[in-house]
Amino acid sequence: MSLTPAVAEALRHALATVVVVPVTPLHADGNPDWDTYAALTGRLIDGGIAVITPNGNTGEFYALSHAEARRAVETAAEASRGHGQGTEMLAGVGHDISTAVESARHAQDHGARMIMIHQPVHPYVSPEGWVDYHAAIANVVPDLGVVLYLRTERITGAHIAELADRAPNVVGVKYGVRDATKFAAVARDAGIDRFAWLAGAAELTAPAYWACGAHGFTSGLANVSPGLALTMLDALRANDFGAAMKVWESVRRFEELRLADSSADNVSVVKEAMAQLGLCRADVRPPSRPLPATIKQEISGILASWGLT
Amino acid sequence: MSLTPAVAEALRHALATVVVVPVTPLHADGNPDWDTYAALTGRLIDGGIAVITPNGNTGEFYALSHAEARRAVETAAEASRGHGQGTEMLAGVGHDISTAVESARHAQDHGARMIMIHQPVHPYVSPEGWVDYHAAIANVVPDLGVVLYLRTERITGAHIAELADRAPNVVGVKYGVRDATKFAAVARDAGIDRFAWLAGAAELTAPAYWACGAHGFTSGLANVSPGLALTMLDALRANDFGAAMKVWESVRRFEELRLADSSADNVSVVKEAMAQLGLCRADVRPPSRPLPATIKQEISGILASWGLT
Repeated sequence: MSLTPAVAEALRHALATVVVVPVTPLHADGNPDWDTYAALTGRLIDGGIAVITPNGNTGEFYALSHAEARRAVETAAEASRGHGQGTEMLAGVGHDISTAVESARHAQDHGARMIMIHQPVHPYVSPEGWVDYHAAIANVVPDLGVVLYLRTERITGAHIAELADRAPNVVGVKYGVRDATKFAAVARDAGIDRFAWLAGAAELTAPAYWACGAHGFTSGLANVSPGLALTMLDALRANDFGAAMKVWESVRRFEELRLADSSADNVSVVKEAMAQLGLCRADVRPPSRPLPATIKQEISGILASWGLT
Repeated sequence: MSLTPAVAEALRHALATVVVVPVTPLHADGNPDWDTYAALTGRLIDGGIAVITPNGNTGEFYALSHAEARRAVETAAEASRGHGQGTEMLAGVGHDISTAVESARHAQDHGARMIMIHQPVHPYVSPEGWVDYHAAIANVVPDLGVVLYLRTERITGAHIAELADRAPNVVGVKYGVRDATKFAAVARDAGIDRFAWLAGAAELTAPAYWACGAHGFTSGLANVSPGLALTMLDALRANDFGAAMKVWESVRRFEELRLADSSADNVSVVKEAMAQLGLCRADVRPPSRPLPATIKQEISGILASWGLT
C-alpha cells in the first residue's frame, strides 16, 4: 500500500523540527552499550526531541556491523515506546540495494514510519544511477516515508523531482551541502513545497537554510544538549534570526571542532562532551580517533560556557 | 602465525605486475552471473594475468550484498584453481572492522594469500583512526599479506610506516591519488623498498608512477583486453617508456570515458566494451548507469581501433 497524501503530509510536518542522530555509546571492550543507547534515546525524547535517526553518521553507521545496525533500530524503537507518544523514528539505511531494502523492512517492523537513505558510498555514482538506486529502495517500501540525504552538488533539483515522480513516498530531503544559496536553488528546482527540507549540516547552516525555506535541521549537538538545539529551533520558528544567531555563536566553536580536518573528529567531539557530562564513554571506533588532551580541554571550556558543568 | 620474511618478499614480488579487478557480470534479472564470472576469470588467467582482485571497485563491490561478495571470492578461487598454477587472489575487503575481518578469513579459507583493504567509506576519518582501522583488520590475519588502497592525500608516508610497524603483514600499497609526484614523496616517506607499490589509478598513471618507483599497476581495462595491459607492463619492465606511452595513447580515450563526470561510468564503460565483444551483459547496478548511445558508439570505435572487432 502506498502512502496516502494525508500521511505523506503528516510525515513532512513531523520532519519540520530538530532531527537528532543519536551516538552509539560503546563499552570499554568496543561493543555497543545498548542499555546506555536506550537511556540516551529516552533522554532525548524527554528533552523534547521529536524525531530520532538511528544509524545516521553521528551514530557511526559505517563502523557498525549489520547486526549492530539492526540492534540500534530495535533499541531506539523500544526506548521511544517507553517515553511519550508521537516520537518518529527515521531509520538510516544504506549499503547495496538489497541490504538497504532489508534494513528498511526491519525498521518498519519496529515501528519506523520513515527511512533516511544514506548517500551511496559506491565510488562510481552517475546522477541517473543515483535516481535508480533511491527509486529501487523506495519502491519496495511504498508505505514508508523516504528522506534523501544529499552531500554532493552533482545531484540537481531536477534529479530529485524525477526520483519523486517515480517514488511518491519521498517526503523529505536532508541537504548536507554547506552552501545555502545552492540549497535555495536545488529546493526550488525540486519543489520547495513538495518535500520537507532539512538543513543537513546542522546548527551552523540552519539559520541561512531556514531563511531560504528549510523548516528543520539535523543535529548531533543535541546529544549533548537537546535544549541548545531546541532553543535555535524555537527562535527560527518565531522568525527571530537574532536569537537563532545567538545560539549559533554559542555553538560555533564546538561545531568547528567537529568540522576540522575533513570532519575527522565529528563524532569524537560529541562523545567526549557526553563523557564529560557523565552520559556515556568517549570511545569511538576507527577510523575515528580518540581526542588529544588539548581538544578535550577546549570541550571542557565550552561545556562550562553553556552552563552544563 | 605471522608472515615469514620470505613469504612477505614473495608476495611483494607477486604484486609487481598487472593487478586486475574483474567485473561482476549480471544476468538480465540483476543477479550476478557466476558462471560467466568464472569463465571471465579463467580468460584473464589464460591471457597472462597473475593477480586477480575479486571485490574491487570495478567489481561493483559496494553494490554487492555480503553474500554476493563472498560468492565472488569463492568463484574466483575456483576458477583460479582450474586455470594454471600460481595465480594470486588479492581479495578486496571493507565496511566495518568486523565485516572486513570476517571477509578476510573467508578469503583465506578459499586460498587467498592477500587481502586489499578498501579505503574506509566512513565519513569521519582521522589519519590516526585510519591507522587503527587497518591495524585492527591486519592484526587478526597476521599470516595474510595486506595491500592498502589509498585514494586520499590526507594519509602520509609516515602514517603508512606507522601502520606497517604495527602490522608487519602490510606488503603493498595501491596508491590511487592521480599525482605521480605526490606518490613519489609518499612512497619514499613510507619506505620505497618496504612495500610493493602499485599505480592504483590504472594505465593512464602507470608510466609516470613506474618512473617514480612503482613496479605494478591495477587495471580494469584488462577485463576487455588483457593483452593491452600486459603490453604496457612488458614495456615498463623493459624500461621502454616510449613503447609504454604508445599503449597509453591507445587506451587514453577509453580511460577518459571511465573518468568523466567523477568516474560515473567507470564500470559501465568496461562492461559495455565486454558486451560488444560478447563476453558478458553490459548491465551495471545503480548508482552506476547504463550508457547513452553516443558513448556506446564511441566504444565501438575504440574496440575497432584496437583490432578487437
